[in-house]
This record gives sequence, C-alpha cells and structure tokens, in this order.
Amino acid sequence: MMPKAPILLMAPLALFAHDLMPVPAKLQPGAGRLRIDRNFAFVQLTGYREPRLEAAAARLVEQVARKTGIPMAPGIGLHAPEAPLIVYCDHASAPVQTVQEDESYRLTVTPLGARLDAPNPLGVLRGMQTFLQLIDLDASGFGVPAATIEDHPRFPWRGLMLDVARHWIPLEDVKRTLDGMAAVKLNVFHWHLSENQGFRIESKRYPKLQEMGSDGQYYTQDQVREAIAYARELGIRVIPEFDMPGHATAWFVGYPELASAPGPYQIERQWGIFDPAMDPSREETYQFLDAFIGEMAALFPDEYFHIGGDEVNGKQWDANPRIQEFMRAQGIKGNEELQAYFTRRVQAIVEKHGKKMIGWDEILSKDMPHNILVQSWRGQKALADAARQGVGGILSNGYYLDLGYSAAHHYAVDPLGEGAANLSAEQRQRVLGGEACMWSEFVTPELLDTRVWPRMAAIAERFWSPQNVTDVADMYRRLSAVSRDLEWLGMTHVSEYEKMLMRLAAGGPVAPVRALADVVEPVKDYAREEAHPYDRFTPLNRLVDAARPDSETVRRFTALVDRMGTEDLPQIREWLTLWRDNQARLAPVIANSALLAEDAELSKELSAIAEAGLQALDRKQDAAWIVEKRALLDHAKQPRAELLLSVEPAIRKLVEAAR
Amino acid sequence: MMPKAPILLMAPLALFAHDLMPVPAKLQPGAGRLRIDRNFAFVQLTGYREPRLEAAAARLVEQVARKTGIPMAPGIGLHAPEAPLIVYCDHASAPVQTVQEDESYRLTVTPLGARLDAPNPLGVLRGMQTFLQLIDLDASGFGVPAATIEDHPRFPWRGLMLDVARHWIPLEDVKRTLDGMAAVKLNVFHWHLSENQGFRIESKRYPKLQEMGSDGQYYTQDQVREAIAYARELGIRVIPEFDMPGHATAWFVGYPELASAPGPYQIERQWGIFDPAMDPSREETYQFLDAFIGEMAALFPDEYFHIGGDEVNGKQWDANPRIQEFMRAQGIKGNEELQAYFTRRVQAIVEKHGKKMIGWDEILSKDMPHNILVQSWRGQKALADAARQGVGGILSNGYYLDLGYSAAHHYAVDPLGEGAANLSAEQRQRVLGGEACMWSEFVTPELLDTRVWPRMAAIAERFWSPQNVTDVADMYRRLSAVSRDLEWLGMTHVSEYEKMLMRLAAGGPVAPVRALADVVEPVKDYAREEAHPYDRFTPLNRLVDAARPDSETVRRFTALVDRMGTEDLPQIREWLTLWRDNQARLAPVIANSALLAEDAELSKELSAIAEAGLQALDRKQDAAWIVEKRALLDHAKQPRAELLLSVEPAIRKLVEAAR
Repeated sequence: MMPKAPILLMAPLALFAHDLMPVPAKLQPGAGRLRIDRNFAFVQLTGYREPRLEAAAARLVEQVARKTGIPMAPGIGLHAPEAPLIVYCDHASAPVQTVQEDESYRLTVTPLGARLDAPNPLGVLRGMQTFLQLIDLDASGFGVPAATIEDHPRFPWRGLMLDVARHWIPLEDVKRTLDGMAAVKLNVFHWHLSENQGFRIESKRYPKLQEMGSDGQYYTQDQVREAIAYARELGIRVIPEFDMPGHATAWFVGYPELASAPGPYQIERQWGIFDPAMDPSREETYQFLDAFIGEMAALFPDEYFHIGGDEVNGKQWDANPRIQEFMRAQGIKGNEELQAYFTRRVQAIVEKHGKKMIGWDEILSKDMPHNILVQSWRGQKALADAARQGVGGILSNGYYLDLGYSAAHHYAVDPLGEGAANLSAEQRQRVLGGEACMWSEFVTPELLDTRVWPRMAAIAERFWSPQNVTDVADMYRRLSAVSRDLEWLGMTHVSEYEKMLMRLAAGGPVAPVRALADVVEPVKDYAREEAHPYDRFTPLNRLVDAARPDSETVRRFTALVDRMGTEDLPQIREWLTLWRDNQARLAPVIANSALLAEDAELSKELSAIAEAGLQALDRKQDAAWIVEKRALLDHAKQPRAELLLSVEPAIRKLVEAAR
Repeated sequence: MMPKAPILLMAPLALFAHDLMPVPAKLQPGAGRLRIDRNFAFVQLTGYREPRLEAAAARLVEQVARKTGIPMAPGIGLHAPEAPLIVYCDHASAPVQTVQEDESYRLTVTPLGARLDAPNPLGVLRGMQTFLQLIDLDASGFGVPAATIEDHPRFPWRGLMLDVARHWIPLEDVKRTLDGMAAVKLNVFHWHLSENQGFRIESKRYPKLQEMGSDGQYYTQDQVREAIAYARELGIRVIPEFDMPGHATAWFVGYPELASAPGPYQIERQWGIFDPAMDPSREETYQFLDAFIGEMAALFPDEYFHIGGDEVNGKQWDANPRIQEFMRAQGIKGNEELQAYFTRRVQAIVEKHGKKMIGWDEILSKDMPHNILVQSWRGQKALADAARQGVGGILSNGYYLDLGYSAAHHYAVDPLGEGAANLSAEQRQRVLGGEACMWSEFVTPELLDTRVWPRMAAIAERFWSPQNVTDVADMYRRLSAVSRDLEWLGMTHVSEYEKMLMRLAAGGPVAPVRALADVVEPVKDYAREEAHPYDRFTPLNRLVDAARPDSETVRRFTALVDRMGTEDLPQIREWLTLWRDNQARLAPVIANSALLAEDAELSKELSAIAEAGLQALDRKQDAAWIVEKRALLDHAKQPRAELLLSVEPAIRKLVEAAR
C-alpha cells in the first residue's frame, strides 16, 4: 500500500515551489504560465551558431516530447510552429572545454514565450536543462511557470568518477550516465580506467595491456573518442585516470617487468588493497610511462590527466633488494618519499605531454610543482593544506556513492566546509569543487543507475547552488521530481529496482518483496566487504543489491512520525499494519526463493516491530512493556543479510512516545 | 494493495509445470534439476559451426546472466568452467532463410548437463530460447528441471507485421522487437514501410520518396541491411511491404505523376482510407515500379515481396476520364478488375526481380499465377478459397494487436479453424501460418512494447504449438512468466506502463492512478477512432494510452469470483475495498492533472460498483437492491474517456449472486 498523499509531506507550498535541481543562483517568480502543447515544436537559435547547439535544440525538443508524451518534431506540425523558446548565444566556448569557462545563463519565461541568453554554448546547455526541469503538468496542462532565472555555478569543477575497472561498465552505460550528469549540470566525467581488476582501454603502443589485462572487456580508442565527443556535446569534460604506482596489477599481466616483484601476474579477482606496485627504481618504468601517457594524452583532449596515486602499501618495495639499494643511493627515506620521487617523475612526463597532473591526496609532497590538482579522499583539511601550499584541489571525501549513505548525508558535505572553512579568499579559489565517486565493487551495469541516481543529483546541487541552499526537506522534494525526469531521460534506477524485486520473487507476488525492500537499506560504509567474501564473480542479485541506500518510504514514514498530527495517525497505522501483515504474505515467497532465504529473519523482525508500533498507538503502555519493546527494537536493528531495517528508529520513537 | 498470493490462481501444479511459451511439440519430464550457478559459463558448440552460432552462444550466456543476476563470462571464471550445455548442429541452413526450413530441435536436460541437437542453426536458435525459458529460481537456487523436449513448429510462417509508417518507429525499436520475436520463436518480420502518412525507406533511384515523403523519418539502406543482418542472426526473415496502388499518398508528394489525379500532394496527417491511388493506366507507372522494385528486391534478400494491395476506394479512378477511357479500351469492367490488372502487372515485375509476390486479400483474382501468397485480413474462409484455388496464404484476421483485444481472444483464432477447418490435407498445406499485425495509429515508440507484449507471445504459441494446446488458464500462467523474461531481454511493456502512470500522476502519488489503470481497458476494435478526431500529432499520453488491452488484475479478480471459495472471500473483499476507497485517494490527483481530468467519472463509477460488490458480500439482498445495482452496473459499463471498466462483469456476478 502506498501512502495516500505524499504531497502532504512536502514543504509548505511557496508561491513558486519549483522543482529545479540544482537550485539556480537567482530566481524571480513571474505571473502566469507558458503553455507547452503540440505547437511547441521549435527552438529558435539566434546569435552564435554551431552544430552542438543545433543538436542540443533537437535533443531538447525530443526530451520535452518524452516528458510530456506530446509528439513534437520541428517543422512538421499540422499548425504553424510557434517559437516559444528563443535562444541567444553570444560566442563560442573554448575548443577544448576548460575548467574556468563561463557556464552562466539567463532564462526568462512568460506566458507568451521564453528566452534563454548565454555568453557561450555551455550556458545554453545548462539553461536548456533548467527549462526542461521547469516543465510540469497541472490542472491546466503541461507548461512552465513564468520566472526570470539568472544562474551560474558556485564551483567550476563538478564531477562524477566512475570505476569501470572492478566491474566492467560498457560504453552504452557510460553514455547514459553522461546524459544523467548533464541533466543536473555536472561537467566532469572522471573515467577510472585501470585497476588491479582490469585495464579497460585499448593501447596501440602496449596492446598487451588490454589483451591480457581486461578479459576482453575494454573500450577501443574509437569508442573512447565517441564517448569524449558525446560528453562534449553535453558540456562535460572527460578526464582519464590511470592509477599508479599501485592499483596496477592488471598492467603487470602483460608487462610484468613494470612491477616491483617478478611475475607472472594474473588479473586480480578479489577486492581490497594489494601488494603489486610499479618499480620506481627502473628507468624503463618511466620510458614505458612516457610512451603510454603520450599515447593517452593525445587521445584525451582535456588539460588534466589523472595518475591515481592512492593506497600503495609498499610491501613489494620493502621486499626488493634492488629497490632498497636504489633508495639508499638516492637518499630516499621510506616508501612515502619513494612514492613522492615516482610521482615527481610522472608529473614531469605528464607535463611534457602538455597536461596538468591530477591525483589523489598521496601525490602531494613538499617539492611538487603547484600546477597539479589534488583530489581528496581524505577530507577538507587535506584540501585546505594543499590550498595553503598554493595547490588546487577538489573534494571527494563525503561523496562516495558506493558507501550507501543517504542523499542528506552527502548534501551536508561542503567542499569549503569543515577544515576548509577558514581559508582566505585567495586560498578558497583553489578549491575548484568536487567529485562524487562510484567505486564498483558492488556495481554492475544492472545496478549502476540504482547506485548513482537519484543521490548524485543532491551532490550536483551542492556543487552548483549557492552555499546557503541547505534545506534538506526541500532537497528531497525536488529530488523526487528530478528522479522522475531522469527516468524519462533513460536512467533505469526505478525500473531496475522493480526488475530485481521481480527476480527475487521467483515467479511469486512482488508486492510483499517490495514492502520489505522499501524499508531496508544496505549496511553502510565498508560493512558489506567485512560481512561476506566478495569477488568479481559474486552474484549481485540479493535483496541487499536491490535495496536502496536511501529509502523514500522510511523518509516519508519518519516525517509522519516526527509530525504526528491527529490527521497523520490513520496513515501511520496503515503503514504499520502493512508491515506487520507482510510476514504472512512474504513467508511463502521466501520459502520458494533461494535468493530470499537469508531475509526470512528480517521479515519477521519487521513484522514484530510494526506490531509494537501499533500497540504504541493503541494506548499508553507501562514500564515493563517499554523495556520489552526496547529489547525487541535493539534486536531488530542489528544487520541481517547485510541489510538494516531502517524504519526501526521511527518505530522506536512511537514506542518511546507510548510511555 | 496487491493480491496476496496470485499463485493461488494458477492451474493446479502439475508434476512438471513448465513456463514454456510456445509449448513444445513433445515434452517428457525427467528427474532432478540442472543447477545454474556461477560455473555455468560456457556453451560448447559441436558439429557444424558458423559465426551466427558463436554469437547465439554468447548471447545465451549474456541472457542467462541477465535473468539470474549471476555474472557469467566465458572462460574468465575463478573456477574451471563446466560445460553444462552442449550444442550439436548438423549442417548449415539455407544462405537466405526460406519458408520451408527445418526449425526442429531436441533438448535433453539432466542434473549433470544439457544437450541441444538440431539439424541446422535455426533449430539451435529455437532450442536455446527453450533452454533460457526453462531456467527458474526455486528454494534450491537457479536451475533447469530435467526434461527431454522434441520440438518443431506447427506452421512454417509465424510473423509480426509492424507499421512503421503511420507513426515512425526508429531502428533501435525495431531491433528490440526482433529480440522479443526471437524469444517466442517467431520467424517473419513483415515491415510495413510505406503508407499515406509516410515513406520510410531510402530509395537511391527515387530519392524524393524519402526526401519529400518522410519528414526525415526513414531508414537508410545501411540501416535496413543492419536490421536484416540482425534478424538473420535471430533466425527471422524480413519481408518489406510497399503498399500499392492505394495507401500511397506519401509516394505522390515527391512523384505526383504516379497518382491518378493531379498533385500536388502532401503527407497525410489524418488516419483513415483516402482517395489517392496509383494510375494503373500509364506505362510510366510500371516503369517506375520496375525500377523501384528492382532496387528494393536487391536490398531485401527474402524470397517474398509484399505489395500491399488493400483498401483502394477507386474514387480517383472514377474521376479520371483518361483512366475510364483506358478501361473501356482494355475491356476492364469496374475498379476491382482494374486493380486486378494492376496487380498482375506488378506481379510480373516482382517475379522478374526473382521474388514471389505476397499481398492482402485483394490481390487474389481468377487468373493470378499460383506462386503468390495471400495475407488475409478477411479471415479463414478467404484463405480456404485461396487454398482451393491452389494459392497459399497466411492469416492475419483475428491477430490485429491494435484493436485492443485480449490474449485469449487472439489465442482462440486458428489459421486452420473456422472457414478453413474442412480443407483437404493438401489444401491445408497451403495455409502456411499467420502474422499478427501492429498498425500504428495509436502506437509510438514509447507505446510499442505495451501494445505488442505480452499478447504477441500467445499468438506466437498459436503459430508454433500443436493445435490442441488451447488451455487458456495455463496460457495466461505461462504468459506471465514469458512477460517477465521479455523485460529481462529489454522489452519495456512493464516499465513504460509505470512511467506513463507516473506522468499522469503529475507529481502526485502514482498508486491510486495505478489502481484505476489496472482495472480499465481501452475500448476495443475501431471505437477509439470513432470517439475522437486523431491524427499524427495527437498526444498519446492519456490513461487510455497507458491502460493495457488485457488487464491481469481483472483476470485474477474474475478468477477469484468465478471460484469464490470461502478462502477467497477476504481477498475479494480486499480488492473491492481498495477500489471503493480509491476515489478519495485519486480525486486530488485528478484535480491537479489535466491529463486525468477526463477520468474523474470513471473513478467514481469504479468506487460505486466496488461498494455494490461489498454490499453483495455482506448479506443477501432484496429484489429492489438488485434492480438498483443492475442500473448502476449498466451505467458503469459505458465507455468513458475511451476506456472500459473491465472489472464490471466480475462485480456484476457478485451482485447477481447476492439475490
């Protein structure tokens, strides 16, 4: 049973409760509404023109058609096409999109038409997404509320890192992800292309990299060019990452001489941190990297080039007498200094090939040139330290989508918060923005969208919108709207969830499986890896894989309980009754599905605490009852089958209120 | 609220209640079960080999992975790959797939492995689909029940006609449709490429056909070759249809001289039958067709070539003095004879280019050569008449998917039933099978799958399975399973339904919209066109477009009412309560959605008859009550917003039982 009126849970209706995400820098509501109907068949481009703008206009018309179900095809309507959206673009953007480009735009909507002005095509692209998001359906039909929007991003670097190496993610899934990124005004796709578990791109110079290091699962250079061109159409930069000197086992399968210990090597199938690392003591290593980075630098036009640099445990270095001798001879003290030596050498190579180096925290050392960029998995303090040294950075700590935290959790993280809050104005300029990270230990193409969306949209807002946009309830209201828009655009986070539940149900009814799935969340942080021995071939088809990291049902129920007006009681009771009775419905399904067997106890726990919640609503309870129910709740909140019963705190609140 | 246990509605569990659709010719259950787990990573091909078989094996592994969620990649498992499916193919099939090819196979599954034997690759393709369908999940995990299957089709011609002209259907949707067809062992894709509303294929010889007749919405010849190659991989023949001499307005936009009245012509935007027809009196018409058919005959390798031939109203012929003079001079009496003259001329051209002509009923005339094929929209009697004349045929009457009938309705139609039941054995051989028809007045790419699937699978079974496979309840049980399989394969009939409901809800809760949508069906036959002035640009985004032609909810509820054991009463009551209370939930959503406004009355009617049903369950009622409720039901069963409240008959049964 669905809640009768989730709209009750929304923030009080403002005069103009728009569904925009990210929230624009400035929005002035107007009067009336621009109607979108079958005559909205034209986007008129004026000013500077280029094919990318023509394509964007055609795509916008197509996306409006998809969102509204109104067939629109420029110029072939029965009626004379009207031109309600006039676009003016002043001049071209850079031939290769740079970090500091202007992405501003101004959008004016009146009942008579709309006008989008931008200095360059990037602003047009951003403004078109705003126009598309503004379209809604009300009692009068589809339309756009009148408004004037002046918008520009807070940070110039707004990214998503996608790990396509641990689990292989084919090109079509990458392109779909780029579509979604553009919808929420992200502008950097960071492509994590190599790992212990796979080398995912074709090298013509060193073909054994992909031939021996990828199981045949890699992008050809043509595909890479296709992805880069696709991203450029959307105003997204593409930055490749080749992780070194660690996280590189897949390189060593074809080229064991690169490693610090003799081979042979095999593609790693487990998850974790492993010993193999490149040999920083041999000149041949740098010769190889020079040729390889040269090849890749020519393929990827972006000014930045990511060399990873994280998590080297140094064991192979410690165990290699030749490397130890090299360190003594060079006066290098310890593995940290050895990695710094390696990184400086690599930085010189990257610079030689015309690029700026970016890498994880570990790349920063005292005598590193300042034109590098640090991507911090450690936090704002590390960014602040870099900024004080004169080195730029972006934040990823707090934005790891794979850890299963809520959108609200990520939304609260600010690149200029915490340890970076006290930077000077000049130092703050060095914090360019942030990147969410989608590591793929628990991500397959099937699961990708359910792990990225819709939470990524909340992070995108953090990167784009003014710092004072922090209302969590309003964020979730708009997140629901953008989530629907993303499904129209082709994301599969809703439909794949349904398919996975269908699979789990093993031909039985899906509804009781959904009732349970809707109130559980995967355990957070790295608890899954600790709970179960996972590898590259472990099926990810369990309830924990289907379950969402941020349950909307729990959020709505919790809001009802927090408010708990008299008018909310019937709805609270209805939910609790559904959950209490679900055990009887779900048990026969579980009995017939090997995949659900592990969830039997979870279903019983849900039923038991829902019954406690109903008792709490029935009458005031005595102390003995409270003690008993607290024990019940304590028991229920333990992880089971790597899942948390995330509705437990709200029910606990009901129980405590019954005293 | 969903039914607690739809499994209760299934047929009594047989010893081997397989989910196969179509049902194989012969199935012998075995003992035990072949386990499908992460070690099922290999299909071993033996005997005759060709690239198509390698591709099919790779596709099978991928589809098993998708259905089970178990990552499978040949040869890269942690463990030694086992080879549970051994395929033996005896020899090649014809270079161009023919009508009479052997499609038989034998599949043996034991707990130790499976073996698939087929004389040629077509049988291998069919058998692989059977193996994939057999995979299910039970309490022991994924697996295939042991069995021996010997299978072959009843009819050699099992097709789907897709109209890509009235609404444009892009290549990717065509390819997805081919995937679905292969899953249910269909073997003919009939591509309806030209119509009054559009000419959808590139002609290099007469480029104004697509340039002026398609709004830019046409397939290039490269795309056509791609589709044909794609279909061949799946064992599907591709037959183009160029409808002539009528249904041809789009040709005349670029080449008005082909028509029987002076131009200029414009692409037709309305639906219906129109006057324009080719001029059968001019030699230039046949010269044009000779060159055009020659070009297309070279592009499409199939032995058959479809020339349409239906629905010429003759008005342009009547009005053209030169054509009237030609008829007098040639001794042609009436328009039927004139069309017969035209068709004989075209048949000679088709034959000259190495093809056999196929067309709708109207192509058949007394002195037509016997090597043509009649596709009958009229019925079995027309097929029987042709067969008695020595002419082959296929049945489409009864298989029009656009008319909104149930799967059961189509399932009951047999190509050799009705007027063809009394043919001699030799004459029966001339009835080659049938084709479902998907005319696209009410079909867009978004709606395509919801209109084709899953009903198409029931028709596919009619074409493949033995004639005595007619159990409707068992058909529906298996249809549910194949419907799930089709979603894994990429069909969107389930996910698009959900998206359309989400759009209708206008940001409000979807559940009450779904509750109504689940118990209504679009009006049948041609009632929609009569209800509303539709054209090419009419938005198809209403509840009638989302609603399914064959409501599973209604079917389940009706089965409960038909059986109505004591144990069914709570579930019947639960459904009725949901529907009665839905009006209060849906009304605020309707008030905020212009798209739902027209459905307000329908929602009230549902609520009212559900209340009557609940009263009927409460106690015996008197005669006055019955009279009142009958009037209520009579009122409720009227179409509203082109929708039928298809749950009405089951509720009526409850009401009548309360006497």
